[in-house]
Amino acid sequence: MQISNWGSLALVRSLLAQRGTPERYAALQADVLVEAELKGHPSHGLQRLPRLLARMDRGLLNPSASGQSHWRSDAVLVVEGEQGLGPVVAMQALHQLHQRAASTGIALAAIRNSNHLGMLAWYVEHIAARGCIGIVFSSSEALVHPHGGTRAFLGTNPFAIAVPTAGRPLVLDASTSMVSMGKIHHYAASGRPLPEGWARDREGHPTTDAARAMHGAIAPFGGAKGYGLGIAIELLIAALAGSALAPNVRGTLDADALCNKGDVLVVIDAASAPDVSQQLSAYLDTVRDSPSSEPDCPVRVPGDGAAQRRTHSLKSGFDIAPQLWAELQSLDLQTPSSPSSFTPASILEGQKQ
Amino acid sequence: MQISNWGSLALVRSLLAQRGTPERYAALQADVLVEAELKGHPSHGLQRLPRLLARMDRGLLNPSASGQSHWRSDAVLVVEGEQGLGPVVAMQALHQLHQRAASTGIALAAIRNSNHLGMLAWYVEHIAARGCIGIVFSSSEALVHPHGGTRAFLGTNPFAIAVPTAGRPLVLDASTSMVSMGKIHHYAASGRPLPEGWARDREGHPTTDAARAMHGAIAPFGGAKGYGLGIAIELLIAALAGSALAPNVRGTLDADALCNKGDVLVVIDAASAPDVSQQLSAYLDTVRDSPSSEPDCPVRVPGDGAAQRRTHSLKSGFDIAPQLWAELQSLDLQTPSSPSSFTPASILEGQKQ
Repeated sequence: MQISNWGSLALVRSLLAQRGTPERYAALQADVLVEAELKGHPSHGLQRLPRLLARMDRGLLNPSASGQSHWRSDAVLVVEGEQGLGPVVAMQALHQLHQRAASTGIALAAIRNSNHLGMLAWYVEHIAARGCIGIVFSSSEALVHPHGGTRAFLGTNPFAIAVPTAGRPLVLDASTSMVSMGKIHHYAASGRPLPEGWARDREGHPTTDAARAMHGAIAPFGGAKGYGLGIAIELLIAALAGSALAPNVRGTLDADALCNKGDVLVVIDAASAPDVSQQLSAYLDTVRDSPSSEPDCPVRVPGDGAAQRRTHSLKSGFDIAPQLWAELQSLDLQTPSSPSSFTPASILEGQKQ
Repeated sequence: MQISNWGSLALVRSLLAQRGTPERYAALQADVLVEAELKGHPSHGLQRLPRLLARMDRGLLNPSASGQSHWRSDAVLVVEGEQGLGPVVAMQALHQLHQRAASTGIALAAIRNSNHLGMLAWYVEHIAARGCIGIVFSSSEALVHPHGGTRAFLGTNPFAIAVPTAGRPLVLDASTSMVSMGKIHHYAASGRPLPEGWARDREGHPTTDAARAMHGAIAPFGGAKGYGLGIAIELLIAALAGSALAPNVRGTLDADALCNKGDVLVVIDAASAPDVSQQLSAYLDTVRDSPSSEPDCPVRVPGDGAAQRRTHSLKSGFDIAPQLWAELQSLDLQTPSSPSSFTPASILEGQKQ
């Protein structure tokens, strides 16, 4: 079914508010989830909400916490997330990084014990909108096997980078796994075989059976290099945030345990001369206009696809599985009311600038 | 032929010194080149030296320059490389970053107009040896096509990350291209066909003919994600250093033009508690000991292979093509003398700690 961002935002905010989430925090968490839907990344969208709500209901997530932070040094902020909502803790930290980077030029936050950040692009876009370069890393449960290995030892360890230009910023947001576990689940649900090389089963054997892969391990992307990046992110986050390493991480995929993964956010004041910003956007346009390998498939720059899908979704709404929409409505603790009776969020409008 | 690090270091230092390179700078540049040989990366070893010497002879490289730097903000150093030797300019910047990061916790240097850095692992290992996390990016000539594209628009844009642990640090050093152009040249020299998917010819068509690929473009590693990382590094360096974008970069592969690529170095004070450092090294050991996909091929952690090769090379010497060794000796401007008459470098010994 197709729904609009307004309707979905209102429902999400209401579900969160009913569980004691302050209005501003509920609006932010709702925006992060709905933005993922608008950009065509449902794996980081509304399907994450039932788990967040269950975590609140079970006391594993503190909806009013925004984290306790201190500057370990002039430009490094350490954040104890206090089991708060991931976006709330991270945006609070980002606010401090921006203030500090105005004088230091670069500032880093290391966060532990907050909940799932959602789509990392959200944060680096926020940084780039303020004229800075953004880099974000996040750790997760062990789902990925080492290159040359067979068992899950690494998180999917996503990374995001945004660089502002005179035009739209470059926005990269990718995991270091070949595919997401969500995609493996989709294949399993549809009974389709996985492409070779994607996954191994619980015993470490290569498998194209998605149902078996769900209990095994996903390959890293890009062979030894992607594995190298994933394990470097794994160590970097744990070293800076004091968070758990993948085999001990819990709480991003379940509603049973406190969340102990870590996140690292970096803000760099680009301070580019105007002609440099122009050169960057002109270069990206040249890349876009360059000959493509497939007819009718123009060359893209990271972030192009998401931006196109967002534009389309804002006009036409986005698809959501009817079961998920029904599940979300069943989680409404108040007398069911039409989502359209809520005031549309102003935050999403504010972001369009 | 097999040669020792002592013999090669002495010759390299002499060739550089004969062209006006101050003794300390010559020792550093020699160490960086010979370290690459010791670690089994000849593409970043002695074969780079004739080009460096030719660049000096033609006035494209200033052997006595170490760069002019200023702090653009408290923790961001901007370096005009003054066409100095890459390692000299970078190590001078690193020295300043280490001093600054003691109070700021993180510090970044953006370098333009210095020469080729050589193997990036050198720098991040240096950072990790001081208990800090190191990240280094470098840009280069356009050799890599976009994912979904056919023409060379990106540099090979290598990145390196080192994270200190209670044991040996994790040391990742990789380009964002599928393979190096050096490897394409090796295939061309031996007449072997390239694996499919590695490269395209000058017209943008897929090719397995290495001789044609030399004039075309290499694929990015890891599909869209590796391309994304490569183009993000491309923009990040240009934005921070004001250096040229790949299509305009010259001077790392030729002896005809001033070098206008850029480098970014980041030092982060890890400040990990001792138990965190222990957890990191224990985790890496668990990964190494985990079941491997190929019998007799144990799972490795980034840097393991280089460290093993280095240990072996220090004992047994390393291979060098007789033609290259003869070429290097022919570049000796003084009466030929036995390399063994030079004092062995003390710097390499110092690094072993």
